[in-house]
Amino acid sequence: MSNLERIAKLSGFSKATVSRVLNHSPHVSQETRATILQIMKELDYVPNRNAISLSTGQTLQIGMITSSINEIMLPFLNGFVEVAEQHGFQTIIYTTNDDTSKERQAFEDLRQKRVDALVIISCVTSAKEVESYCKYGPIVSWQRMDNPAIGSVAMDQFKGYTLALDHLIPKGHTRIANALGRTYSINTRSRQQAYEQAMQKYNLPVLRQFYYPSTYTILDGERVMRAMLQQSEALPSAILCSNDHVAAGVLCEARRQHLRVPGDLAIVGFDDTELSHTLGITTIRNPIAAQAQNAFHLLSGPLRGIDMPQAELCFELIERTTT
Amino acid sequence: MSNLERIAKLSGFSKATVSRVLNHSPHVSQETRATILQIMKELDYVPNRNAISLSTGQTLQIGMITSSINEIMLPFLNGFVEVAEQHGFQTIIYTTNDDTSKERQAFEDLRQKRVDALVIISCVTSAKEVESYCKYGPIVSWQRMDNPAIGSVAMDQFKGYTLALDHLIPKGHTRIANALGRTYSINTRSRQQAYEQAMQKYNLPVLRQFYYPSTYTILDGERVMRAMLQQSEALPSAILCSNDHVAAGVLCEARRQHLRVPGDLAIVGFDDTELSHTLGITTIRNPIAAQAQNAFHLLSGPLRGIDMPQAELCFELIERTTT
Repeated sequence: MSNLERIAKLSGFSKATVSRVLNHSPHVSQETRATILQIMKELDYVPNRNAISLSTGQTLQIGMITSSINEIMLPFLNGFVEVAEQHGFQTIIYTTNDDTSKERQAFEDLRQKRVDALVIISCVTSAKEVESYCKYGPIVSWQRMDNPAIGSVAMDQFKGYTLALDHLIPKGHTRIANALGRTYSINTRSRQQAYEQAMQKYNLPVLRQFYYPSTYTILDGERVMRAMLQQSEALPSAILCSNDHVAAGVLCEARRQHLRVPGDLAIVGFDDTELSHTLGITTIRNPIAAQAQNAFHLLSGPLRGIDMPQAELCFELIERTTT
Repeated sequence: MSNLERIAKLSGFSKATVSRVLNHSPHVSQETRATILQIMKELDYVPNRNAISLSTGQTLQIGMITSSINEIMLPFLNGFVEVAEQHGFQTIIYTTNDDTSKERQAFEDLRQKRVDALVIISCVTSAKEVESYCKYGPIVSWQRMDNPAIGSVAMDQFKGYTLALDHLIPKGHTRIANALGRTYSINTRSRQQAYEQAMQKYNLPVLRQFYYPSTYTILDGERVMRAMLQQSEALPSAILCSNDHVAAGVLCEARRQHLRVPGDLAIVGFDDTELSHTLGITTIRNPIAAQAQNAFHLLSGPLRGIDMPQAELCFELIERTTT
């Protein structure tokens, strides 16, 4: 007797129903699913996924494209891996180091059905080229691509950044520095636009000489702090940071340089990590894990024939001791 | 003309040689490989990996088993993904939440040739059961398994922890607390043994009431600091932490509680991350990325027929301002 037959017999359901449970089909009642899963558990049964793949034509693998794996995207990566796993999908990670030929490998894997879908955390391939692969399987992006063919869970960084500016400017900060992320990303451009528009609106100087691009880590933050002090003109009174790690580096280095925070320099991070919490850094809460949920929900239509709702998400200012 | 033929023609090498380059075979000279890769690049050629798999019987995928993805193992994960990728292997991550049935899925994938090899970051399946899968493909573990059939890149935590104790005790610390990691792991037991043996050796009290198990994050560190203050007996004069994140939480919470560090409490972290650097936390340098390299090198024999050397690694005390 095959495992399938044994489970069918013990559960009292047909082999077709057992198979639907194994294939994560939505067309099974919660109760039936629970009964069958319980019997599988009692039998200590591990489904043979190659067999599943043959019946559904799916690999049950979803690829994620990212330049590298770092602490900032970890909540997104983890959130996605977890929700995908709950629905029977494994996650393959393609680390590309911003190399288009390595990115192409992922897109080719979609075309060749080695993965059922792709999630873009970051990529440098043009949106137009990415779009050309959408016919082979669903593609969702966390990075902003601004192309309607590519599902998006990106949030408008303009809004998040503006929250920080609307917090700093009324406190009297007129000279504001910016530690920015990836130079050519839409996110970075949005943040810069938010800054420049706010400065113009309040008739304040746009300090391009205090733009620090490509800052990602604690060490980058320390470096930015030292670079600000070495500029020929006076220190800005505040700095907006690309993320909380950079903000932590700026803060710790500022203290080593005997600056008062926020007296001499106000600091705002981004993301609201545990690090910003423990160091008391004012930051912008970024619902990253919820964006990962949304990403899987966007894929669940094409992959599983189920419409799962998109959570509406927004940024939030978390005021702490650095402003 | 197929791509293979076109590359062969343009390079002047045989199709067999081009195929060897595509298959990451070691039996091609550096020079030949470089020539062929250059032509592939000029042709904008992406190898069809399904075709490769058919010829080598390999999937070119390596699975990694981990309870979850967190900041501590990130250097291992990243280091491994990078070195594997350099040699043409993709990495699949199985997050198992310490559930043996999810772990079994990974082992079954090895048996069913969905992956060519497995790397264990953490798992709760018994070493004996893991061993039973070694006949299907190579398995290497970062977590200590203490089973000769399972390749190991684990380092003896006893040694690292002893470095911290040999640093603290001569400074006059006699009452030492411990924030520990996974309760049943060999690593945690080794650290506890190192502590208990050192205390006995110096005739000092073993403070089991100041063991804090399952501490992993900054928030855990904050919680440990508050718990220490709430104990009925006096605060220990030093605490050894399971990692730098926990140490950062202890440090920040200690300052909020107006304790002097190291005057009232000395703190030692583990791993030597950027965080310990920027916060000035004394720590034990843990060559995690190099362990990941070693892990791939251990696999390269069975997977690619190449013996790659194991780097000899050791822990190192990094003294900063918290001791």
